[in-house]
Amino acid sequence: MKLYTAKLAPNPRRVHMFLAEKGLLDQIERVELDLATQTKIPDHLGRNPLGLVPVLELDDGRFLTESRAICSYLEHMHPEPNLMGQTPEERAFIEMFDRRVEWGVLLPLANWVRHGHPGLGVLEKPQIADFAEASSQKAKAAMVWLDEDLAGRDYVAGNRFTIADITAFCALEFARLVKFKPWESHPNIARWRDQVKARPSADVG
Amino acid sequence: MKLYTAKLAPNPRRVHMFLAEKGLLDQIERVELDLATQTKIPDHLGRNPLGLVPVLELDDGRFLTESRAICSYLEHMHPEPNLMGQTPEERAFIEMFDRRVEWGVLLPLANWVRHGHPGLGVLEKPQIADFAEASSQKAKAAMVWLDEDLAGRDYVAGNRFTIADITAFCALEFARLVKFKPWESHPNIARWRDQVKARPSADVG
Repeated sequence: MKLYTAKLAPNPRRVHMFLAEKGLLDQIERVELDLATQTKIPDHLGRNPLGLVPVLELDDGRFLTESRAICSYLEHMHPEPNLMGQTPEERAFIEMFDRRVEWGVLLPLANWVRHGHPGLGVLEKPQIADFAEASSQKAKAAMVWLDEDLAGRDYVAGNRFTIADITAFCALEFARLVKFKPWESHPNIARWRDQVKARPSADVG
Repeated sequence: MKLYTAKLAPNPRRVHMFLAEKGLLDQIERVELDLATQTKIPDHLGRNPLGLVPVLELDDGRFLTESRAICSYLEHMHPEPNLMGQTPEERAFIEMFDRRVEWGVLLPLANWVRHGHPGLGVLEKPQIADFAEASSQKAKAAMVWLDEDLAGRDYVAGNRFTIADITAFCALEFARLVKFKPWESHPNIARWRDQVKARPSADVG
């Protein structure tokens, strides 16, 4: 298997952290692509018509894209430690929590960064300042329910670490580009983030 | 089980169509909520802290949210007809295609509608005209790869109908609000859409 990636971007980082939790990060060949010059070209569009990373090339030559789908495949191939649910019912609930932070936290934060950070202008054309501002408001509102959610349990999806923690953690790490540090004002997010940040998989390498 | 929903919105419609394909639509109690007045209130925030529909209330009182997670649960409870993959590997590839149309087609189309249609101002505050325009450009660009993808196979994820067709179809149906009709200029989308539209599950009821 070969992973086409850009490790500082939030979605590739989700897959890296997932691989690290599985003990697989150094067992898969990784090809770092420059997001500004190497993803919207024919070579990469042949791997993913959307021109995005990450892309996992399987040994039979097929290309699997979309971070969460790649994780689903890896979870099947390497079931331990379990990160996506032991039973179909648990898998549905973890999927719920993963999507909740993906759409409710990562999406507004990514929109804030992509439309608001001068350095991201090469990727997001046109950058729209009003949309960056509206996204920042949505992201800040999301911290309220995330903090309340985390008051009642250790991790995003319950009392153990799962893929949903990876998604939420990578989202907050990306938002450091706009100096957003919700852990400074939300105690449950702070406690949860400290736990996740202490894991070896949190180190982007 | 009880489904809190708003059948004309694209995400609830995905679950309705999924249920209809399973022959379950009339077997689950449905509670229609008004998106402008009945979803951001304490009653519903207790079901989903994000104040969104659909929400599936299970018989044990738990609330399952997020359209695709609800479908994962229903697929487990009612495996036939299979809509999300027979094997873990097929499930990962169908998840890839479902996410590809969700993020690459539904998201820009929904942003176009929510930021561009006067009637959606009650849900999207503030509406940002420049972002509606940028989203419309992304959606139109997405139609190029979707049409090319569909040139090589009957359905979005391969040669049989799956959840990915439901996501793509519901996205295009929602975009009719801004009079976007990509099937008029993209022959493979037109052929695919005709097939999907002929299914009884395509009728929103």
